[in-house]
Amino acid sequence: MDLPVETPDQKLRARARRVIPGGMFGHLHSNRLPAGYPQFFERADGCHLWDVDGRRYVDFMCSWGPIVVGHQHPVVTEAVQRQMAAGDCLNGPSARMVELAERLVGLIPHADWALFSKNGTDATTTCATLARAGTGKRKILVAQGAYHGASPWCSPNPAGVTAEDRAHLLTFKYNDVGSLETAVQRAGDDLAGVIVSAYRHDYGLDQELPDPVFARRVRELCDANDAALIVDDVRAGFRLTLRGSWDLVGVQPDLSAWSKAIANGYALAAVTGNERFRDAASKLFVTGSFWASAVSMAAALATLDVLESTDGPRRMRDMGLRLREGIAAQAAAFGIGVRQSGPPQMPTLLFDDDPDCAKGDCFTLEALKHGVYLHPRHNMFMSTAHTEADIDFALEATKAGFAALAARMPRGHGS
Amino acid sequence: MDLPVETPDQKLRARARRVIPGGMFGHLHSNRLPAGYPQFFERADGCHLWDVDGRRYVDFMCSWGPIVVGHQHPVVTEAVQRQMAAGDCLNGPSARMVELAERLVGLIPHADWALFSKNGTDATTTCATLARAGTGKRKILVAQGAYHGASPWCSPNPAGVTAEDRAHLLTFKYNDVGSLETAVQRAGDDLAGVIVSAYRHDYGLDQELPDPVFARRVRELCDANDAALIVDDVRAGFRLTLRGSWDLVGVQPDLSAWSKAIANGYALAAVTGNERFRDAASKLFVTGSFWASAVSMAAALATLDVLESTDGPRRMRDMGLRLREGIAAQAAAFGIGVRQSGPPQMPTLLFDDDPDCAKGDCFTLEALKHGVYLHPRHNMFMSTAHTEADIDFALEATKAGFAALAARMPRGHGS
Repeated sequence: MDLPVETPDQKLRARARRVIPGGMFGHLHSNRLPAGYPQFFERADGCHLWDVDGRRYVDFMCSWGPIVVGHQHPVVTEAVQRQMAAGDCLNGPSARMVELAERLVGLIPHADWALFSKNGTDATTTCATLARAGTGKRKILVAQGAYHGASPWCSPNPAGVTAEDRAHLLTFKYNDVGSLETAVQRAGDDLAGVIVSAYRHDYGLDQELPDPVFARRVRELCDANDAALIVDDVRAGFRLTLRGSWDLVGVQPDLSAWSKAIANGYALAAVTGNERFRDAASKLFVTGSFWASAVSMAAALATLDVLESTDGPRRMRDMGLRLREGIAAQAAAFGIGVRQSGPPQMPTLLFDDDPDCAKGDCFTLEALKHGVYLHPRHNMFMSTAHTEADIDFALEATKAGFAALAARMPRGHGS
Repeated sequence: MDLPVETPDQKLRARARRVIPGGMFGHLHSNRLPAGYPQFFERADGCHLWDVDGRRYVDFMCSWGPIVVGHQHPVVTEAVQRQMAAGDCLNGPSARMVELAERLVGLIPHADWALFSKNGTDATTTCATLARAGTGKRKILVAQGAYHGASPWCSPNPAGVTAEDRAHLLTFKYNDVGSLETAVQRAGDDLAGVIVSAYRHDYGLDQELPDPVFARRVRELCDANDAALIVDDVRAGFRLTLRGSWDLVGVQPDLSAWSKAIANGYALAAVTGNERFRDAASKLFVTGSFWASAVSMAAALATLDVLESTDGPRRMRDMGLRLREGIAAQAAAFGIGVRQSGPPQMPTLLFDDDPDCAKGDCFTLEALKHGVYLHPRHNMFMSTAHTEADIDFALEATKAGFAALAARMPRGHGS
């Protein structure tokens, strides 16, 4: 009897299990995806991604957000190569840091200054620390279930976290003014800040845009209590608009946290803030070995060039809508109930009556076999590299996904 | 009257003050260096660095540690270019992650596995969290004055830090067995771990290598109390030895934190651990948007190739000793009392009777004018790119530094 042939992905998984706990860590671990998804990748170009087994996908995760103008974008690559030939990690910043801070201050209405770091968690942690430093108070309000990073103060996983790590957090429900007001009352005269995601994009749930009434109430309560309004724009920033996501509901934060799409995959994060927090920000000691490195800042400047000159958020919106409308038509034709939520640039697709995500898994796995990488639970990401032809190719794959699902479901499933 | 001509550095500082709080942040801020040091840099090659005013320096800070085989090293650059042409930030890791984890496990005696992140602070924070997750206990012992990162739990700056952020930290004195035993007793049955720097490299103080008696006692106490021994090798790792710095005193930690030199300036950090903590590590949720990116891992593999094939730590030691001996001879000739401390690969030079570092400032500023970038207070860093000729060039500059100091000092200063 022939032994099954191991694929390169399977071989790498076996090697990884020996030298990486659990074989992989964090959000890129394939263990929350259906069996059949690859763990290891070989290369990428534009909106296409190749796994180590040589399979090509039209990609709708965009590396979970960072890739916003497509892999290997020539404008970004040229800027990166030029900066690399000069220098990256030096004894101080290059001029790119000043240029990028000026650029962000010019683009983002609330921003009077910027600081730079490497991880989204660096940026959200700096915002929380700065809210405390600037107000002299301690309580930070966070929405229940919101993801603001993977440090002990905010990690969704309790392993190794002490009660004290979250001693000064109070929770409210996103878009729920009453729960917000209750939390503000509980904080009393110790309210340092309120941190809100750009919109509700919690794992496995339908997405919700911010209710303008809620957003304005957050602003009012922060003003009335001398607290910082922090928008966590790490996931959504530079995809919906280049001005900060709450600009879309007419509310300006005091502080914003940015990362992911800011430099098209190069490691960079930023905090922007207004004059009110400038002095406190100058007194923080926030730093890291690579936080002033020039290449990722050159990449960010080039990425913003491309997003501005091509009206990137609009382009991603158009392509996201094309995908959404195609999927909606297919779902209706198959009589399968789906819910598509969130901004079109960051679509979430969930199935009705699918508590264990079995439908979602079946659907996305079938799409994967047809060369399209979707996520069954998490919001997805568009890039400006997705063309009409890529969306139409994806719709062939989603059609196959619906067909596979229909074949598995009992008759009358969709009624 | 002519107005003074502004240099490019001065112009950038003025622009930076408008858009970056305090004009710069963190350890690369020039405000702790004598006036005359540059803030902004243009390019780098080997052990040479050019500021934006076009001045060239032989550099002894190596970007505060990351640059270990010299800027633009062809082996690293080639590996980086090859990986960039394939892909960097993807929907999962590349094979480089497995190769690098295997490489670290092969090199580092205590390492059975590795995890990757971006900042030294990510790695030390993961070690502390993992010590707690693995032991089910909470107290972490840290040496007074030791730097383990810039998050609220470890930052040297109290701005925005709450008492709860440090509720489970207890301190001891580095190399002081009695103070260590007292702290262990205070932790009682709640001791999760002890974190120690590779050696004592606290800012502005003489450096101290770990006393083997102390190091063995840390190991014994961690074993007796089922606690994790964590070596923070972020600053010293891969410069003194490739096996982990406490291997030099014959003590193996349970967990080590790495960053800085691991990838010659590309943003990467790592945690290595032994079997005892593998299961707990697999249960942590540690992640960041760029933690699986392939380019910095390709850079790390190439950096380790160069360090291994050239016996890099030995080379840096030889050049560090050449510098140290030259400086000692000059100091004796000028009759100026200096203290040179720490491993030769990471020299610290401090002046006797210099409480405000005025002598150090004068000396290093004069060296800077002669094209050599030294630090008056912090430990410095050698790279394998420093040649005998570079050291001899530097010794001309330090000679000028001693001469400038002698000219300023009252007669009989050195006696």
